[in-house]
Amino acid sequence: MKFNKIKAEIITIGDEILIGQIIDTNSSWIGQELSKIGVSVVHRTLVSDSEQDIVDALNEAKNRADIIILTGGLGPTKDDITKLTLCNYFNSSLAINEKVLEWVTKIFSNRKLPMIDTNKNQAMVPEICEVLFNKSGTAPGMWFDVDDKIYISMPGVPFEMKTIFTEEAIPKLKQKFLFPVIIHRTIQTTSIGESFLAKKIEDWENDLPSHIKLAYLPSVGQVRLRLSGLGEDHDKLNEEMKIIITALYYIIGEYIFGLEDDTLQKSVGELLHKKNKTLSTAESCTGGYISHLITSVPGSSSYYIGSIISYSNEIKTHELNVDETILNTHGAVSKECVSKMAEQIRIKFNTDYAIATSGIAGPDGGTLDKPLGTVWIAVSSKTETIARTYNMGDNRERTIQRTALEGLDLLRRMLLEI
Amino acid sequence: MKFNKIKAEIITIGDEILIGQIIDTNSSWIGQELSKIGVSVVHRTLVSDSEQDIVDALNEAKNRADIIILTGGLGPTKDDITKLTLCNYFNSSLAINEKVLEWVTKIFSNRKLPMIDTNKNQAMVPEICEVLFNKSGTAPGMWFDVDDKIYISMPGVPFEMKTIFTEEAIPKLKQKFLFPVIIHRTIQTTSIGESFLAKKIEDWENDLPSHIKLAYLPSVGQVRLRLSGLGEDHDKLNEEMKIIITALYYIIGEYIFGLEDDTLQKSVGELLHKKNKTLSTAESCTGGYISHLITSVPGSSSYYIGSIISYSNEIKTHELNVDETILNTHGAVSKECVSKMAEQIRIKFNTDYAIATSGIAGPDGGTLDKPLGTVWIAVSSKTETIARTYNMGDNRERTIQRTALEGLDLLRRMLLEI
Repeated sequence: MKFNKIKAEIITIGDEILIGQIIDTNSSWIGQELSKIGVSVVHRTLVSDSEQDIVDALNEAKNRADIIILTGGLGPTKDDITKLTLCNYFNSSLAINEKVLEWVTKIFSNRKLPMIDTNKNQAMVPEICEVLFNKSGTAPGMWFDVDDKIYISMPGVPFEMKTIFTEEAIPKLKQKFLFPVIIHRTIQTTSIGESFLAKKIEDWENDLPSHIKLAYLPSVGQVRLRLSGLGEDHDKLNEEMKIIITALYYIIGEYIFGLEDDTLQKSVGELLHKKNKTLSTAESCTGGYISHLITSVPGSSSYYIGSIISYSNEIKTHELNVDETILNTHGAVSKECVSKMAEQIRIKFNTDYAIATSGIAGPDGGTLDKPLGTVWIAVSSKTETIARTYNMGDNRERTIQRTALEGLDLLRRMLLEI
Repeated sequence: MKFNKIKAEIITIGDEILIGQIIDTNSSWIGQELSKIGVSVVHRTLVSDSEQDIVDALNEAKNRADIIILTGGLGPTKDDITKLTLCNYFNSSLAINEKVLEWVTKIFSNRKLPMIDTNKNQAMVPEICEVLFNKSGTAPGMWFDVDDKIYISMPGVPFEMKTIFTEEAIPKLKQKFLFPVIIHRTIQTTSIGESFLAKKIEDWENDLPSHIKLAYLPSVGQVRLRLSGLGEDHDKLNEEMKIIITALYYIIGEYIFGLEDDTLQKSVGELLHKKNKTLSTAESCTGGYISHLITSVPGSSSYYIGSIISYSNEIKTHELNVDETILNTHGAVSKECVSKMAEQIRIKFNTDYAIATSGIAGPDGGTLDKPLGTVWIAVSSKTETIARTYNMGDNRERTIQRTALEGLDLLRRMLLEI
C-alpha cells in the first residue's frame, strides 16, 4: 500500500463524563467512523471543563496525531470553555459568523422563543477557524488547519455531533487527506456460539488475504462477523469481498440471518412480508418480549396480528385450550404445552405461523427435573408444529432475550425450510 | 472540611476500545465508584496495547493524580502487555504468586481443562506489587504503592474488574487514605419533564446546604434526581438528607415512584403485591412492551396474569369485544376503543386492574386529525376506567417506551388514589 498511516486522537471534555454520570459513547462512535475511512485512532483522552486541562491535552495530542477531534463544551452556557480555549490556543479572536447567526435566529423564531445574548454568542467563532455547519442544533462545529494538523471541535450532544461529523467533517477530511479504500461488511449469525462458529470457519478464516481482516463481535444469542478490507480500487475490493462472503454462506449459511444492520426480527418480518404470510405468538416465559421485538420493526402490522401472553396457567387453559391434563401430567414447561399453545394461537388468531414459549426464567421455580433456565419453544404452521427445549442458564434477563431470539430463529428456519 | 482532595486518573488499555469496536463502560463505572467515596477523577486516558503508550500515560498520570487505575491487558495471551510494562516501569521482576497459582490450578481442574503454560503465567506477578485477588477469573489484580502514589491494575473483563475493585481495591484504598463521608440518594420521578420539575423544586433546590449537591439525570419518560452529600459524620448526614427528601415529597410527591434503583415496573409490582391485586394488559401500539417490562421483574407471576396484544383490529373486535361501530366511528386510536380494551381484558382475564394502549407509533399512519405520535392509554379497575391522550412525537422507539411508562404511571396513581 502506498498510503501513509493517518493518526487521530479524540479529546472528550466534560466533568459529568469524567465522574461517570454520563457514559461517553461519542468517542467510540467517532473511532468507528474514522476506522471506516482508514484513520487509526491512537489515543483518547477525557478531561474536565478546564482551560488548562484542555490546553495540556492539545499539546500532548499534536505530538501524536495528524487529526485532533474535540467533543463537548460548546453549549450556550458555561460550557463555552472549549471555544474560548481554542481561540486563545491559536491566538485568534472571536467574531460573528453571519451564516450561523442567521441559522440560530431562524431556529429561535421557528420555536417562537426570544433570543437572548447567550444564544447570539453561539454565532461567535474564532476568526481562524472554518465553521462546520450544525443543522441539528445551534452550536456550530469548528475546523482549524494549523501547522499541518487538523483540529475539529464539535458539541457533545450525540445527534448534533454525528450530523456535523458525517455531513461536514468527513467530506473535508477526504479532501485534505488521501485515504485508502476501506470496505466493511457485516455478517449476522445466530443460534451458534462464538467458539463453535470459529471452529467451523477456521479454514475459511485462515485463507483470508492479509488485506482483509475478520472480527468476531458477540452479543446475547448472536455473533456478528465483521470483515474489513483495505485496498486501492473500490470495485475490485468490493467484488473480492462478495466472493469471500459467498464462500461463507456455503459453510455456515443456515446460521446467517442477515447482513450489515439487519436484526433477526427485521429479517423474519421481511420473509413473512415477501411470502405474504401472517404471524401470531403465545408467550409465557418471554412475557411479551418476542411481540415487542417484532413490533419494534416499522411496518410489522402488515404481517403481525397479535399475541396472547399467558403468564398464568388459567390463561393457557381458558384462552389457549391447553388441557388441564397436559398441565397436570407434563407441566406448563413441556413439549405438549408449548406445542398446543402454538397451534391454538395460530388457529384462534387465524395466522399462517405462530411461535410459543414456556420456561423457567427464574430466579425461582427450578426443579431437579426442570432446572432453572429450562425453556420449551414451539413454532407452528398449517402443516407442522415443531418444538425444542433449551437450557438458557440462570440469568432471568438473558433467558428472556435468548429465548426470544431462538424462537424467531426457529421461525426463520421454518420459513426458509432449512 | 478537613480533607485534602484525593485525585484519581483512569488509564484504559486496548486497541478494540480505541477504534470503538467495544464501548468502554469500565472507566465510567470506576468513575462513579470513586466519586461515591469522595475521590475526584481528574483525567481519563485510553491507549493502545503498546508498552511505550502505557509508559507515557503513566508518566503523565503520576503528575496529576494520587491514585492511578489501569484496566485491560491482563489476559492470558498477548494482552499481558500491561503486567510486563508495569514490571519494567517499577524495575521489578516477575515471580510466581503461590496463592494465585493455587487458584488458577483449581479453576482449571474444576472445569476439567488441561492447564498450559500461558495459564500458569497468570500466577506470575511483579515482586513489588501486592496481589488483588480475583475471585471471578484467573487474571489477578495488582496494587503498587510507589513514591506515595497508588497504582491499581485490573483485567478489562467488566465483571472481573468489578469484583476486584469492590472487594479488594476499595477496602485497601480506605485503609490508605482518609476519606470524607459521602452519601448518595436517588429520587426517581416520572411523567414530568426536566424543566417543569426544575421549576417546581426551584426554592427547595436553592435552599440546599452547600455540602449537598443535586444532579438531574433524565432519560426517556423519567428524571432521576441525585443528591450527593459530603460530611464527617455518617448518621448526621444521613438524617439531614432524609429530611431534605421528605421535604421534596411534599412538593412533588405525586411524581416520585421510587428511590435508589427502583423502576416503575418494580414499584407498581410492589403496590399490586402489597394490596394482593392482579393485573392484565391489552396492548396495541406498545406491542407487548408493557408486558415485557412487568415480566422483567422477578416474582411478577404472583400479580401479572397476562395480556392480549391486539395488533390487528380483528383481534380488538374478536378477543376484546370492541364493537365495529367504535372502530368505524371513532377509530382504533380513540378514548372509546382503548377504554373498552381495558375493561374487556380485565373482565376476560378476571383481574383487579388492567392497562390498555392504542396509538400511532409510526413512521406511517398519521392523519391531520390524529398526527403521528397520538396515543390513547386507559387504566381500568372494578370501579372506574380512566383514559388519557398524549402526543409522543415522531420517533417509534421513544413513543413505545414513553407510552409504556405513562401506562404504568397511570396505574400507579390509580393504586395510590392520587
